[in-house]
Amino acid sequence: MNIDTQKLEQILYQFKKMKFSMFRRDFLLSWDKSKEDIMAVLQLGDILKYLYRHNISLKIFQTGLGVSFFRDKSTRTRMAFASACDLLGLSVQDMDEEKSQIAHGETVRETANMISFLSQVIGIRDDMYLGRGHNFQKEVASALDEGFEKEVLGHRPSVINLQCDLDHPTQTLADLMHVKDYLGSYENLKKKKIVMSWAYSASYGKPLSVPQGIIGLMTRFGMDVTLAHPKGYDLVPEVMDKARGFAKESGGSFTVTNNMKEAFKDAVVVYPKSWAPYWVMEKRAELIKRPDSEAALKQLEKDALAENAKHKDWYYDEDMMKTTKDGNALYLHCLPADVQGVNCEEGEVSEGVFEKFRIDTYKEARNKPFIIASMIFLNCFRDPVAYIDKIVTLGYKRTGYYNFL
Amino acid sequence: MNIDTQKLEQILYQFKKMKFSMFRRDFLLSWDKSKEDIMAVLQLGDILKYLYRHNISLKIFQTGLGVSFFRDKSTRTRMAFASACDLLGLSVQDMDEEKSQIAHGETVRETANMISFLSQVIGIRDDMYLGRGHNFQKEVASALDEGFEKEVLGHRPSVINLQCDLDHPTQTLADLMHVKDYLGSYENLKKKKIVMSWAYSASYGKPLSVPQGIIGLMTRFGMDVTLAHPKGYDLVPEVMDKARGFAKESGGSFTVTNNMKEAFKDAVVVYPKSWAPYWVMEKRAELIKRPDSEAALKQLEKDALAENAKHKDWYYDEDMMKTTKDGNALYLHCLPADVQGVNCEEGEVSEGVFEKFRIDTYKEARNKPFIIASMIFLNCFRDPVAYIDKIVTLGYKRTGYYNFL
Amino acid sequence: MNIDTQKLEQILYQFKKMKFSMFRRDFLLSWDKSKEDIMAVLQLGDILKYLYRHNISLKIFQTGLGVSFFRDKSTRTRMAFASACDLLGLSVQDMDEEKSQIAHGETVRETANMISFLSQVIGIRDDMYLGRGHNFQKEVASALDEGFEKEVLGHRPSVINLQCDLDHPTQTLADLMHVKDYLGSYENLKKKKIVMSWAYSASYGKPLSVPQGIIGLMTRFGMDVTLAHPKGYDLVPEVMDKARGFAKESGGSFTVTNNMKEAFKDAVVVYPKSWAPYWVMEKRAELIKRPDSEAALKQLEKDALAENAKHKDWYYDEDMMKTTKDGNALYLHCLPADVQGVNCEEGEVSEGVFEKFRIDTYKEARNKPFIIASMIFLNCFRDPVAYIDKIVTLGYKRTGYYNFL
Repeated sequence: MNIDTQKLEQILYQFKKMKFSMFRRDFLLSWDKSKEDIMAVLQLGDILKYLYRHNISLKIFQTGLGVSFFRDKSTRTRMAFASACDLLGLSVQDMDEEKSQIAHGETVRETANMISFLSQVIGIRDDMYLGRGHNFQKEVASALDEGFEKEVLGHRPSVINLQCDLDHPTQTLADLMHVKDYLGSYENLKKKKIVMSWAYSASYGKPLSVPQGIIGLMTRFGMDVTLAHPKGYDLVPEVMDKARGFAKESGGSFTVTNNMKEAFKDAVVVYPKSWAPYWVMEKRAELIKRPDSEAALKQLEKDALAENAKHKDWYYDEDMMKTTKDGNALYLHCLPADVQGVNCEEGEVSEGVFEKFRIDTYKEARNKPFIIASMIFLNCFRDPVAYIDKIVTLGYKRTGYYNFL
Repeated sequence: MNIDTQKLEQILYQFKKMKFSMFRRDFLLSWDKSKEDIMAVLQLGDILKYLYRHNISLKIFQTGLGVSFFRDKSTRTRMAFASACDLLGLSVQDMDEEKSQIAHGETVRETANMISFLSQVIGIRDDMYLGRGHNFQKEVASALDEGFEKEVLGHRPSVINLQCDLDHPTQTLADLMHVKDYLGSYENLKKKKIVMSWAYSASYGKPLSVPQGIIGLMTRFGMDVTLAHPKGYDLVPEVMDKARGFAKESGGSFTVTNNMKEAFKDAVVVYPKSWAPYWVMEKRAELIKRPDSEAALKQLEKDALAENAKHKDWYYDEDMMKTTKDGNALYLHCLPADVQGVNCEEGEVSEGVFEKFRIDTYKEARNKPFIIASMIFLNCFRDPVAYIDKIVTLGYKRTGYYNFL
Repeated sequence: MNIDTQKLEQILYQFKKMKFSMFRRDFLLSWDKSKEDIMAVLQLGDILKYLYRHNISLKIFQTGLGVSFFRDKSTRTRMAFASACDLLGLSVQDMDEEKSQIAHGETVRETANMISFLSQVIGIRDDMYLGRGHNFQKEVASALDEGFEKEVLGHRPSVINLQCDLDHPTQTLADLMHVKDYLGSYENLKKKKIVMSWAYSASYGKPLSVPQGIIGLMTRFGMDVTLAHPKGYDLVPEVMDKARGFAKESGGSFTVTNNMKEAFKDAVVVYPKSWAPYWVMEKRAELIKRPDSEAALKQLEKDALAENAKHKDWYYDEDMMKTTKDGNALYLHCLPADVQGVNCEEGEVSEGVFEKFRIDTYKEARNKPFIIASMIFLNCFRDPVAYIDKIVTLGYKRTGYYNFL
């Protein structure tokens, strides 16, 4: 594929005009970043995707490590982070808990420094317990601040949230980029209805980070965001407040309903997905700290599953789809989805609807490595525009034997 | 070591004349590839080995991932794949089942795409259950076809069989290259006798992939291939048919016998190695799918071991070696071998014979990274000859500080 | 940061004068290396640290593997080795025992070769059982000698001891570099008192490698080395002899005492740290080889912990610190330390003292990747001085898009 110089010039032009402030600043919660920062990540993400597709090398690091820190099993996010690091020239080291035991307090401060001597980025996923993941990421970040300030570290590696208890920004920015591709531009998102809806799953304890991330992000782009869930499946109040505030600022809206049908009516984009009720997550986080809470945890799981089972009628299928805009709303999912008759009997989505959008969900996911690479790029370099200019001007090839010479 | 320009010119000349068709085509079963394809892998493998030894950088990828997908523990094949990827400039990500759970159906289609966004090659080892490994590899391959066709993937990563239930081509091509080195040329393999013989092991369930791979490959090079095993230790009928057909085409021969002594008589190359009887593998694959089959599986193992124990006299030692050509046949093994008095009491080979050929088996194994690198090279580039030409002409060093400048 | 050319010239000048002999020689035990070799590792380590800080690329390998071989869980050493390899351009492959099973005898010889075809360095950590770790490393080394001699391997990868039962040279050289930074120069170490003292820990079975490494290294630099421990916590006699001999040669001294207070008096540098008594380690190593020794091992642990508990008054705190030189001795630890009231109730060091030196211990640890990189560098290149000259002259940047062009 030859580079379409005009198209590239256009996206570069937009990127160069941006006023962002990402250098050496972590990406933990999307609602703590300015809209300019978010737009910069998205725009540079698109540029990187474009250049990758045209076989341009994006290797801006000759050596250096990216450390991935996963507190549970993961295939997609791990691969996305590894791909992003490699794309820029970083080697990945996995700090999974099988290989190392890292607790809180002194151990975190110490370990954060020990893994950072020659590292450029620390990607952390810790989404299992409410009140833990984000706090853990902040703890690592502040240990790195201290290490940098006291000259243990020659530079301050960035911390990137690869999913915490509160937000999942690398996912939701990838979702957002996908919606933009569907609607043509970020401008076109204004006044378009998106539904973030709870949907039934036979599992329990799914994090709140995706629905919270979606309502906290899409409301900033002027969308009409509807959050739908059965009674009791509330999200964290602070994030609800954020969404309300953003909707007001952006000229969009934020509506909450317990009526699924109502929610999907005339929607342009839909995101039906299961999550655990806030109160379950809170109770679980509390129980987990106590000794001998195993029986109580079992009971909580039983109660939560019983509660879920009351809402088996919350799923997305052809009939529901017919009620969306032109009967054809864009279906989003962070994957893996609970697909009826495929990997579950009863679940989030019917096989027919999922199959119609399956390839789209892959394209949605494909954005993630570029979003992460964009975050690393913006965090590590003071003047990313100059670097991108150089990359485009030199045009070194990604594959081929030193064919850039 | 200085490059012997003449020798290099000679192997390059042969490679350039070849008519292969490997670009963007997976390497799953050797018998599904043309002989030209196989010769291209071998020839380029030798070129890469030669250039590596002379400290020439073979880094044709600036960035990119190689994904290794192992469904059981492995040291040798994992290292060979990692070495091959690194040699060409790819970073390796391991998708072992400890880190990710991947089942069949939708999950495979999805995962195959999720791990491929920025990947150049997917190496898969899945050799435990008959009827599963090759099918799994085909499933991944067809998911990648769909992903590429529908523009999820910017390019189609290659799938390389790192051992399945049917074949183990990276091993058998390494074996073949070793036999060529021993006999002087591929031409010299014609009418030379090679014995692929069953040998006793106290373990059970060893895959059929090596013996099948050997009879399906060596018969194409005009060798007189003898397959020897006790009654009941048959191989998969379709592969037997392939071997018969290839022998006819190549002017070699394919003989099956249940008499070990007869088999080894006058052999030039011998490959004594244990495998499970086909019927055991079939029954096992069937049982594994059923619930509550644990007792039946235990019984099968017991029966299989009892059956094995009837054939403890099937081993290779000095006496047997004396009956081979000049009493000095080349001993092959994919390692680890069951060596009597070393890692087992009774097993495939006597200590004396193994020790005589131990270093040779290491050299045999050493070919594997180059065979894999050759497959990746041929799969990823439309015109590998031009690339190799460039590599040789530029002559950049593998080690040294940008000493190519 | 701009390069201080004068300072760089000065350290380069010193390095160029050195007479070391490290090419293709393993680094297993510090006391088996010449003092020139050790000084070369330290000096080049400082150069690499300096150049890294000034964003100079140290990528001397275009491709190649570093294999890390850990027989127990590790975060710090694993990261240090991975960072060192990456710094020089090598990819890391972990051979942890979860992924591969490697026993002794033939398996070691074979595996050592199998993991080395395209590898430049093998880092091994095996510190759990007395009499095993060092022997295992020697076994690997001699297998590589054979492989190289018999032309299985095109070059001989270096073996680096990442901690064995006897020594932990990458740690102790990092410690030594830290002491040098504190005292201004290696020359200044002469006649300065350092205490390597046993300290209480509620755990059992901590290796002897750090205290042995310290007394075997610091005595070579003319320090007044005091080893303090309760009766029965002796170190391996051979290493004690080495320390005595080195002290005599270097004009320093080596004193052993069972009186903790006496030991710390007027110390300039202190290293309070727990270890298991030699006799416990010996008995444990012996028991581990026997079948059905589980009960005996439990009993041994119980006895050892009871013995430890008699010496709870062996810890380092503010009061003890007051008795050191100017009440302000430099505190060393290889981390993690047992800090009272932080990660244990009773342990090696009081919270106040540890907190005072916490950042210093991080800086001590930060030296490790550079020490390891220096060892690899010196092992792999016949003329490292010429390479360093080239690196400095060319001045290619570590980060930035081919900004060296």
